[in-house]
Amino acid sequence: MSEVTSKGLSGPAFKPVDPMAIPKMDFPSKTRILRVGILGFGTVGSGVYRMLLDNRDAVSQKIGFSAEVVRIGIKNRDKPRELPADLFTTDLDSIVDDPQIDVILELIGGVDPAGALVERALKNGKSVVTANKELMAKEGSRLVHLAKDRGLDLHYEAAVGGGIPVIQPLKHQLAGNDVLKMMGILNGTTNYILTKMTEEGADFNDVLVEAQAKGYAEADPTNDVDGFDTSYKIAILASIAFGRQVPVAGIYREGIRKIGREDIHYAGVLGYVIKLLGVVQPIEKDRLLVRVHPTLLPKNHQLASVSGVYNALWVHGDFVGDLMFSGRGAGSDPTASAVVGDLIDVGRNLAIGGQGSAIPWEQSIETEPIESLETEYYLRLIVQDRPKVLGQIAMILGEDNVSLAAMEMRVLDPEAKLGEIVFLTHRCKEGDFRRAIAEIEKSDIVEKVCSWIRVEC
Amino acid sequence: MSEVTSKGLSGPAFKPVDPMAIPKMDFPSKTRILRVGILGFGTVGSGVYRMLLDNRDAVSQKIGFSAEVVRIGIKNRDKPRELPADLFTTDLDSIVDDPQIDVILELIGGVDPAGALVERALKNGKSVVTANKELMAKEGSRLVHLAKDRGLDLHYEAAVGGGIPVIQPLKHQLAGNDVLKMMGILNGTTNYILTKMTEEGADFNDVLVEAQAKGYAEADPTNDVDGFDTSYKIAILASIAFGRQVPVAGIYREGIRKIGREDIHYAGVLGYVIKLLGVVQPIEKDRLLVRVHPTLLPKNHQLASVSGVYNALWVHGDFVGDLMFSGRGAGSDPTASAVVGDLIDVGRNLAIGGQGSAIPWEQSIETEPIESLETEYYLRLIVQDRPKVLGQIAMILGEDNVSLAAMEMRVLDPEAKLGEIVFLTHRCKEGDFRRAIAEIEKSDIVEKVCSWIRVEC
Repeated sequence: MSEVTSKGLSGPAFKPVDPMAIPKMDFPSKTRILRVGILGFGTVGSGVYRMLLDNRDAVSQKIGFSAEVVRIGIKNRDKPRELPADLFTTDLDSIVDDPQIDVILELIGGVDPAGALVERALKNGKSVVTANKELMAKEGSRLVHLAKDRGLDLHYEAAVGGGIPVIQPLKHQLAGNDVLKMMGILNGTTNYILTKMTEEGADFNDVLVEAQAKGYAEADPTNDVDGFDTSYKIAILASIAFGRQVPVAGIYREGIRKIGREDIHYAGVLGYVIKLLGVVQPIEKDRLLVRVHPTLLPKNHQLASVSGVYNALWVHGDFVGDLMFSGRGAGSDPTASAVVGDLIDVGRNLAIGGQGSAIPWEQSIETEPIESLETEYYLRLIVQDRPKVLGQIAMILGEDNVSLAAMEMRVLDPEAKLGEIVFLTHRCKEGDFRRAIAEIEKSDIVEKVCSWIRVEC
Repeated sequence: MSEVTSKGLSGPAFKPVDPMAIPKMDFPSKTRILRVGILGFGTVGSGVYRMLLDNRDAVSQKIGFSAEVVRIGIKNRDKPRELPADLFTTDLDSIVDDPQIDVILELIGGVDPAGALVERALKNGKSVVTANKELMAKEGSRLVHLAKDRGLDLHYEAAVGGGIPVIQPLKHQLAGNDVLKMMGILNGTTNYILTKMTEEGADFNDVLVEAQAKGYAEADPTNDVDGFDTSYKIAILASIAFGRQVPVAGIYREGIRKIGREDIHYAGVLGYVIKLLGVVQPIEKDRLLVRVHPTLLPKNHQLASVSGVYNALWVHGDFVGDLMFSGRGAGSDPTASAVVGDLIDVGRNLAIGGQGSAIPWEQSIETEPIESLETEYYLRLIVQDRPKVLGQIAMILGEDNVSLAAMEMRVLDPEAKLGEIVFLTHRCKEGDFRRAIAEIEKSDIVEKVCSWIRVEC
């Protein structure tokens, strides 16, 4: 540090926002009550309403005002509801246009019509709290800029990790760090399914049916089990951590449908569990590799013990080292906790007449293709059970610079002379590994490439 | 919810702060650079300086200004330093009085002179970031009010859990919850010692000496091993979670000096690990039981796997359920991460011309004495190895409503006819348990009450 001078931190002076150029915010409703409009009254909306009611004194004390839900926008008027009918409307535009409403809670989900409603609310000068991961992943950059330009808040803590605080800590307390890697178990449905498969030695399809019966999985489970939900969430986290919009289309995505109970068994024998992870790591300056796929995690990794419907985010920063946040990542009450926390922040800010604290993401960041990944791999094959087979497979893999670190094998069918072999490779390039797999599939000694899974090392 | 009406959330309207009554903040230094004064240049101060230097582009981008350390206050001018001499001064008042300085980082520690310097900085209109747990635990309420009244920030994320974000998440994202219980491993030194004792079957004193040699424990380890440090930290967390100052004097405090390797061994046999915890739980409305002591934790509890110098906070809120934050709780770099995160927040707020967001704690909350605790207990005795002894001990305990749940025993010295017995009790009142122990100590069948430890159940 010998060349450091007292001017060492002066750097280029950024032009600050001129505080006079932005009109001072006040409660649009001009009341002494924070008047809240809710869009959507499903699991999350009703949880938020109940929380505001159950904890009203605490919420009032923390905002400095009471918070009153004055209007709830719904799709279907015919559903029986326990609240007075005049609280509800199917005219959602009328809520975001209502000058008597201070804050909008967008709890509909999906891009359409939620996106247009959030935009309209912001343009009407209302701060917004949303739990909408798909909207924030796809339109977040534009919407946060819109809020920032108007001195409004746009909070979205509930979009990732349910009630676990992850978004604001990344934006604020960890903001001084260069994030070196982030890995998250961000979808409760898939973590529940993988946990059950592990605990009970069960097949994917059987556990999925059970999860659907229990309400842990949707009738159409695509969004969860094929990794879409996780990809939206890791896109948001990566966009915050690196300050630039990560395009969802640039995220490598692979779900858990192809994970067999055999894979979970062999992973266990080798000292690993299988988790669906969202992972982001910077590759070079200004390039990110963002990926969602099943992963073999060493059993002693902190994320490995996150079970059932729990979610967790593991972050490695250059100064903070590694840390982890875990808790209930979904459900009515935990999600309500995050929405109400954000609402309290909006209310506090309005109470002190402050500017919104929206922190925009900059222009899109480039993502790396999955082929540039370097990691270890798990590979399960059905092979002919005869001499020299093992050696021949090792030779083929070696041709593409893939070398072996561990192996398990068993005879599958002595009559048909078939065996099952499981390998763990040393660290290699995904491109090389894929080429090796293509060669193995061509070979006549291998009956079937059952599965291959990336290993976190 | 049938009695709920649309006016259900109206409640009493609190008088809001009049935003016009507080003068708008601007950069006191009137520069386009955030000018930072650091008080104290030990482990934390030098870490912060290094982080601001290493990550200067990221910090500048996030604040919207560059941050420049313009002055560093030190105690001793004679120490060799790698930075230019004109950056340093021993006149700490001159830093907090300097109109060219925008933000003060108080990294001295202890109440005196840090408290007076923080107060003076706030009165001079400067926002403050501090890592000082003792100061915040003892003077936090007054100092936060001082900041709030002046529209300034007083941030102290680094005071608890090093780089792990715990304070701001409790203040913001979890603010809508009623906290039902919080438990933390908040001191790295004691967690390192207990982990080493567990892994190596070693004695407290041997591990302490090793920890001192490695720099993990101070020459005078009192502050850590007797639980003072943990008591400051749990006082701060409890004050935030319940919005009222928790007096340090009202916290029950017991350190780890008396934990024998035998206790760790027996705890392990019974399925537990021993951790020094800070615990807070509301007993009735407006009363808290806050305590710091070694605790037997079931091995499958999330906190049980937090080892070595790692810290963790486990929170149970009425809506969010249980969640946990873990990471490196001390050290130069993780603590710098928290300080710089706070500094970025102060800078962002100044950049948008915003009011500070200090959230004051209200008047002191009453604390319950430890006697009102109800829990399970671990008890290790040396007894005479002869018939009926076990029955007699069970009788004495039963007289005070203490019943037994599990037992381990071994012969210690066949010649002297001595045995060692370990009990786990069922849940009982601490007052009853203490009376039972007093009776046992009087009895002639028990040679020695070696130890008793509370169990988290």
